[in-house]
Order: sequence, then structure tokens, then C-alpha cells
Amino acid sequence: MGDYEIPWAKPYFDGAELEEVKGSFETGWLSMGKKVRKFEEVMAELVGARYAVAVANGTVALDLAMKALEIERGDEVIVPAMTYFASASTVSYQGATPVFVDIDPTTFNLDPIRIEEAITTKTKAILFIDYGGNPAAYDQISQIAKAHGIPLLQDAAQSLGAVYKGAAAGAQAPVSTMSFHLAKVMTCVEGGMVFSDSLKMDSRLRTLRNLGEPPGEKYTHVALGTNARMTDISAGIGLAQARKLPFFLAERKRVAEHYDELFSASENGVKKVKTPKIQEAESRNAYFFYPVLLASRDQIAQDLRAKFRIDTRIAYPVPVYGQPIYKSQKLPFRKMACPVAEDVSKKVLNLPIFPGMSSRDIEKVVGAVSRLVSSE
Amino acid sequence: MGDYEIPWAKPYFDGAELEEVKGSFETGWLSMGKKVRKFEEVMAELVGARYAVAVANGTVALDLAMKALEIERGDEVIVPAMTYFASASTVSYQGATPVFVDIDPTTFNLDPIRIEEAITTKTKAILFIDYGGNPAAYDQISQIAKAHGIPLLQDAAQSLGAVYKGAAAGAQAPVSTMSFHLAKVMTCVEGGMVFSDSLKMDSRLRTLRNLGEPPGEKYTHVALGTNARMTDISAGIGLAQARKLPFFLAERKRVAEHYDELFSASENGVKKVKTPKIQEAESRNAYFFYPVLLASRDQIAQDLRAKFRIDTRIAYPVPVYGQPIYKSQKLPFRKMACPVAEDVSKKVLNLPIFPGMSSRDIEKVVGAVSRLVSSE
Repeated sequence: MGDYEIPWAKPYFDGAELEEVKGSFETGWLSMGKKVRKFEEVMAELVGARYAVAVANGTVALDLAMKALEIERGDEVIVPAMTYFASASTVSYQGATPVFVDIDPTTFNLDPIRIEEAITTKTKAILFIDYGGNPAAYDQISQIAKAHGIPLLQDAAQSLGAVYKGAAAGAQAPVSTMSFHLAKVMTCVEGGMVFSDSLKMDSRLRTLRNLGEPPGEKYTHVALGTNARMTDISAGIGLAQARKLPFFLAERKRVAEHYDELFSASENGVKKVKTPKIQEAESRNAYFFYPVLLASRDQIAQDLRAKFRIDTRIAYPVPVYGQPIYKSQKLPFRKMACPVAEDVSKKVLNLPIFPGMSSRDIEKVVGAVSRLVSSE
Repeated sequence: MGDYEIPWAKPYFDGAELEEVKGSFETGWLSMGKKVRKFEEVMAELVGARYAVAVANGTVALDLAMKALEIERGDEVIVPAMTYFASASTVSYQGATPVFVDIDPTTFNLDPIRIEEAITTKTKAILFIDYGGNPAAYDQISQIAKAHGIPLLQDAAQSLGAVYKGAAAGAQAPVSTMSFHLAKVMTCVEGGMVFSDSLKMDSRLRTLRNLGEPPGEKYTHVALGTNARMTDISAGIGLAQARKLPFFLAERKRVAEHYDELFSASENGVKKVKTPKIQEAESRNAYFFYPVLLASRDQIAQDLRAKFRIDTRIAYPVPVYGQPIYKSQKLPFRKMACPVAEDVSKKVLNLPIFPGMSSRDIEKVVGAVSRLVSSE
């Protein structure tokens, strides 16, 4: 993950992952089999989903979810303006039109009060995320979706471990997608999942995952799916990681709270550093990201790398409609006024956070940021 | 691969694959890294390609290839009528129209003399395959493509190890795609590759593979790609398999020639069994499949399973336009008259073939088929 003294993320393996892979080679079950099934069950349990379909990665999870929701050319899907490209590109993959809506300045999530003005007769779904593991205002978003009879789609790529009003986040919408990429809270190296609340949706997703082949019907294709299969090797890695999830989440909380404490201490001179806040009582951040807002973000990120060998992530450097593929008008999109996303994407910097990050490294990061902010 | 005495395919691992995976866990390079790069180089060398981009599987390889060739809604792509669904579904994934052309009765490959009548002003590419490792009539197909100025796309999912006029098949077209699925001649469990003959195409494919992010430009998206990345874990498995490729191919040849010999012996009473033939001198079959044509194919396949516990594959039970998703007119397609594909898809049965298959098992399969054919 780059040649830095402190990486921005660091996957954590302890030998259990390789043992799982070894087991797969011993039994000969390597492609999609029992471990995939078990991983689906384990993850459904963890996020409180009825059904779960494991897939190759979080982007294809979204692609299949959009297909399962029958999003097609001419349809519109509401998407937060500041999110990973895949939240919007998978809308475009269907030939449909993403409609970018501004974010809340406190949580960096889709702003519920901005949704209604974006709804048209073409709106086919509302997609929301839990930015960096910070849970979205689900009840408000859900209420609007219900009032307009529009399906909700949760891009829960960053949600694992988040808690919304006392319950696990990640599978709140009728269809939700998750990512298990290497940098995520837990990983399959590459992997994803689609959660749903109905057997019909689950069957549809299973068929879409395997090139439109209904389970058990070899070489019969009833839908336009793709090969989105997860292997038993990836699922085994995921199973080993899932057993460590409580540890991973506790570690992220420890690091985040240490950052909070240091940044709030006035002697660090980083009063300018602002982090997003949890809005709802009984909710908890999973701390996939530890974002701060900095006026000279680009310079500070560069200096952190060059002078302190500390890596960071800018998630995200522009609102999605500012990406070259949209900006150049090569793909159809609509955007509402997004002053918050414009502002936050200029200032946000995601600091290193990972299980096992030492107090010394946390202090180093805060020290370096403080020094750079003070000398602005 | 199912509870049979003789499976139709059987992957071959010898410990080197797990060693590669172990190495990845030891170095911590698990996602797309050095092993992916090395695997690309090794495979490019093996098939004589200039450039190679490793991807998640053979279907997404085709999806990216179509995008790299800028196949879009309204465009037509010529596809052999008897091929795996992905050859056509990835055309439909672009919103484009597959145009199904008949196959040659001797090789089961796209029939060159049937191509020209299918060409229109909308034809954007001609896709051909090497059915079961039997090389297509590349020179004739290529000549037609050149005469009309239409790009060729080789779906080389089954081509690895095939030889066409003395040279390796698999990367003959400007853009070719390969599959390393578990049942293939060699495997990454799931994996694929796109070969190309220009740096421009290679760069485009690398960008498309990573959600339209040009290499090194994190969170900048210039194209509508997807996550098609291969992991270093999969690449390591592929590297270990590639070192055994000569053995795999020799074994397949041994099994196929043993089948040939037994089926041609008159005492077996299987004169009705016909296998496809190599058309070109200095060409070689890779024997991914060992297909035979049987009048009562469905009954024989069923009896082989039930009475002899021998598994087989029917590749393919219907021409692609006969798949429910096309038949139901849910997706646009065009078809030419395809009497050969209609006939062959009713009769073709792919017999067990894999490295290490014993002479006794080969004899058992021939014995069982002979008995069932004789009692028709």
C-alpha cells in the first residue's frame, strides 16, 4: 500500500485467512461453493439482512442491484454528490441518469432536505451511502422515498460496523450493497455483497450474478447478468476476517477517539480541524474514514507524504459530476445545486486509521497536521 | 465438481498454487500488484500477444473489450450462433445488438462463408471463438473483416493451447479475451485476460478495468469502466498453473487421441459418433472440449449420469438466440439462418477430458456411450 511510514489503511491478517484458503485447496472446493454460502449467512446475520448474495466486488454489487431494481435507460437515480464514483457509474452502466444531490455539512451524507426538489417522474431509485461509516439520516430519507413510492438503494460500501438508532447499518434499504475491498473495515481482498429483504429479489440477484442462469440450470440464461461470482477462496478470507470484526471495530474506535482527543486539545493549534458528527442518538460511526476538513488540503496532503511519509486519502477530491467522464458530457447526468459537496470535496482529508495503529503513530499524524496547519 | 465417478472436468493443483498464495500473504501484496503484472507478461508470451490486461473473469474481459472497441447502443456485432452466452450477452450489456451467424459443421466455429450476408452499415465488430480449443478459420474471417474495415474480436475463452498454422492461437485479433475459470485448460479459479496489439488499446483497457481510473490517478475517472481487477492471489494461482501448461496440454491430447482411437474402432459400434475436425494444416486442437454428436443426446447424457455416474457438458444446448432472454424478445438481436447451429446444438455432447484421466476411465466412457448408442 505504498512506501510510507504510516499508510492510510492497513489490512490485518493473522494466519486464519491462509488456513481457510488451504482448506479450500484440500477439499477441492475453490469456485463458488459452501464457503460463499456460509459467508453470505454470516454477513446477513451481522448486518441484520434477510438475504445476502456474495459477489466479486462492491462495484458489481451495485451493477447487479441496479439491474435487480430494473433501472434502465431514461430512468433517473438520485445519488449523493460526494461519494465514490461507483455509486454513480453503475447508474450510467445501465444507460440511466444519475441526479446529484447535495450532502449534509455535518455528516457528509445525502442531505434529506435536498432530495425532494430532485425528484421527477423519471426517478426510479434513491441511493444513499454512510460516508466513511458515519450513518446516514435513514429515517428521513426513507420517509421521503415512501411518500413518493420510490425504492431506496443503500450503497453500504463503507457502512459495515455502523449503528443507526441501535441497530446495525448496512442493510436498511430493501436492497443494499457492500464492499470487502482490501482497504475496507474487513476484506476478501476483492469482494462484495448484495443484501435484500425479499426472496424474489434474492433469487433475481442470484440469477444476475451468474450470467442470468437460474441456480441449477446450467447454460440457460433468463436475464442479462454478468459473471459477478465470488470464489470460495475469497469467501474463506472473508470468513476469517468476519471473526475478527469486533476487534477491527474496537481498534478503529480507539484510533478515532485518540484523534478526537488530540485534535480537541487546544495546545495542538488545530482548531481549524473539523470532523463530521453523528447526527442521531443511539447511532455509532464505524470509522472507516477519519476525515478532517482543512483549508489548504492539497498542500497539506502533499507535505504529509513528502515531509512526514504519512499517506492519506482524499475522499473525494471533486463532487462526482466533476469527474472528467461526467464533466466532459460524455455521459448523461443531472445535478442540483451542491455548494456543500463543492466545499467539502475541496477540504476533506482522510487520515490514517487501521487496526493496530500505534498511539505513537496517531500522535505523529496529529503533530504533523498541526504543524502544517499552523504554518499555513 | 459434482458427485460423479467421472467428472466432465477436473482442475489439477499440486501445491504450487497454495505456495503462491502463501507468498502473497507473507509479503502483504494481495490485491492487484506484481503477480498480476507478471501473470500478464507470462500469458502474453504464451499466446504471442503484445499486450495483456488481467481481469476478474472471462465475461468481464469481453465487457471491457467491447467498451474498448466503443461498441454502443445501435451498433451490431456478429457473433457465432453456437457459443457461450457471454459472447453475445456482453454485446447486449453495451445496449448493442448481437447478430447471430451460423457455424461450420466440421469445426463448430463461425462459418466464414456466412459472415458477409450478415454485415450491415451498423456492423461494429466480428466476434469469433475457437470452439473447444479447435482453431477457427482465422485467415478467411480476417480477410472478410479487413475487406469491410470491421474490427475483429476474438473470444479466446477456449483457445489456450490451440495452434493455428504453426502459431499460438488466443491473441490473433487486435483484441482478444481469455478465461481462466476453474474448468478451463488452466485456471485462476476465476480469472480472465484481454490481449491487444496496441499500446493505446492496452492503456484504454487498464483504465476501463479500474472504474475508468488511469493508472496512478486515484479517484479520477475518465471512462465508464467497472471494477474488473484481478487480485494477486488469483494471479499467483494462474502463474503456478501456467508453469504446468505443457503438461496439461499433453494430457488433454493423450485423452483425446485415446477417445479418437476407441471411437474409430468398429467393434465399439459407435460409428454414429462424430467429432469436429481441424481444418487447417499445421493447426492443432487444444482439446478443451471433446465433443461428439449423438442423435439421442439428451437421453444419453441423462443415462450417462444416472446409470454410469459419468458427467458431461452440453455446450451448447441451444443456439444463443434460443436462450430465454433473447427468445422472449427482452433484448434486441438479429439472426441469420442457422441450420447447422440448430442441428449441432441438438446433438453435441462434451465428454469428460482432464489431465490425469486414466485409460480405464476413458474406456469406461467410450464403453458406456457405445452401449447407449447401440441400444438407441
